[in-house]
Amino acid sequence: MPYPEWLQAPKKVDLSKISTRGEKDPNGKKISREKAEAKHAENIAALEELQFKLSAESKHKILIVFQAMDTAGKDGAIRKVFGPLNPQGVRVHSFKKPTEKELSHDYLWRVHQHTPETGHIQIFNRSHYEDVLVVRVHNLVPEEQWKKRYEHIRNFEKLLADEGTMIMKFMLHISPEEQKERLEKRLQDPERVWKFRKGDLDERKLWAKYQEAYEVAIEETHKDHAPWYIIPADKKWYRNYVLSTIMREHLERLDLKWPLAEEGLDEVVVEDL
Amino acid sequence: MPYPEWLQAPKKVDLSKISTRGEKDPNGKKISREKAEAKHAENIAALEELQFKLSAESKHKILIVFQAMDTAGKDGAIRKVFGPLNPQGVRVHSFKKPTEKELSHDYLWRVHQHTPETGHIQIFNRSHYEDVLVVRVHNLVPEEQWKKRYEHIRNFEKLLADEGTMIMKFMLHISPEEQKERLEKRLQDPERVWKFRKGDLDERKLWAKYQEAYEVAIEETHKDHAPWYIIPADKKWYRNYVLSTIMREHLERLDLKWPLAEEGLDEVVVEDL
Repeated sequence: MPYPEWLQAPKKVDLSKISTRGEKDPNGKKISREKAEAKHAENIAALEELQFKLSAESKHKILIVFQAMDTAGKDGAIRKVFGPLNPQGVRVHSFKKPTEKELSHDYLWRVHQHTPETGHIQIFNRSHYEDVLVVRVHNLVPEEQWKKRYEHIRNFEKLLADEGTMIMKFMLHISPEEQKERLEKRLQDPERVWKFRKGDLDERKLWAKYQEAYEVAIEETHKDHAPWYIIPADKKWYRNYVLSTIMREHLERLDLKWPLAEEGLDEVVVEDL
Repeated sequence: MPYPEWLQAPKKVDLSKISTRGEKDPNGKKISREKAEAKHAENIAALEELQFKLSAESKHKILIVFQAMDTAGKDGAIRKVFGPLNPQGVRVHSFKKPTEKELSHDYLWRVHQHTPETGHIQIFNRSHYEDVLVVRVHNLVPEEQWKKRYEHIRNFEKLLADEGTMIMKFMLHISPEEQKERLEKRLQDPERVWKFRKGDLDERKLWAKYQEAYEVAIEETHKDHAPWYIIPADKKWYRNYVLSTIMREHLERLDLKWPLAEEGLDEVVVEDL
């Protein structure tokens, strides 16, 4: 399956050299907020129809992975791009700290249970990538163990793709300055302050280590059948526009078809009761 | 928990005497389409905020059951009322013909697995009620077996409610004339004709038997903690307006609160990196 290359991760990833603002269209031209919002609305309308077909045809499975630093907007992105779709065909699973039971299995065990069924879009809010991100940064398992995981993940995603799952992986890319602003805003908003954990600041101090872990994870697992997109996410309107554009392009490439009608419907008459 | 009584099932249910058109507001006054649509949009905006709180507070669980005759609009209702909400907090499960594995358990086994977790809204598109509807109409199990199920279902829903689940059950009520129109429309629409099954017409002929099965099921299981609402569904705009109004009223009664912020946040400073 050939994928469009717009915003796909390069072979060698240096996040510090990739814009967190974007503001360009797929042709590299600057795009205004107004135009991007109009395009996003168009994309959403198209996605509603595409999803209806995806579900009716019941042939493909879609897996979307969201990974990002804290405050980068995973929740907002999910709401703005997938909220308008039919909830019947969209599932979101948020991977939290593994439970005792989950830890007693290999780390892909719980992930496999939430992979999409035919006709569905499954969204991972965080994912198995945490097992080479937070786990690596904090050495939650020894290096010789997490080092092997890139290969496991490649093999796992190959299995999914070979068996009919279209995979897209989105890293929402923000700058540390933008994160600072968002954390400060959170502290000041009485309706959002409950989200703030002092521990978030300790994680923030590990910014460079996390960026490095992301770079390695992306390089190690970026494949044609499971591409990584690095989404400039400092501007929410740009992030949404980019995500809906990429989603739409992918679903259009599936060339979805309405299922065939049963035969002999021409003669059918619906009678009064 | 006291529930508003608007459109709740009466003690003795005679569906033939209950309007399939509605077109009235909770005070019994006629409502125009325009006004109902405006009110529905308002309800949706309120529901978005309520759901955010529901999810943040993570205290209550919500279970919504949709049951209806074919073409009555379960899918459309789910899309129009729950589509705009954050997909992260809404799950839809469609109960289809049970699998071999599911049949090897009691009929509530598969249902229990999909009951909502805290902070979530779980929607059942069809439900355990099929086990006293289609099963009864077609005698898929002997009468002495399905007769006992009303009690099982009462006990099951009591358990869920006692353990913190708010339950609402919606029967979308259409007339046989409206169903005829919708089936004919489906036959003529090239994008929807694949949905048509000749077998649907055999089911349609059992209309009276199904209505009776609904009446008994509703009477047997309508409880304060698990009320049935009979939603006039011939007009889609009215159906949507009613559903969002009832949903909103229920969520408002929960008196949802933002979680408390961590202590000592006043002194927190987010530092530059």
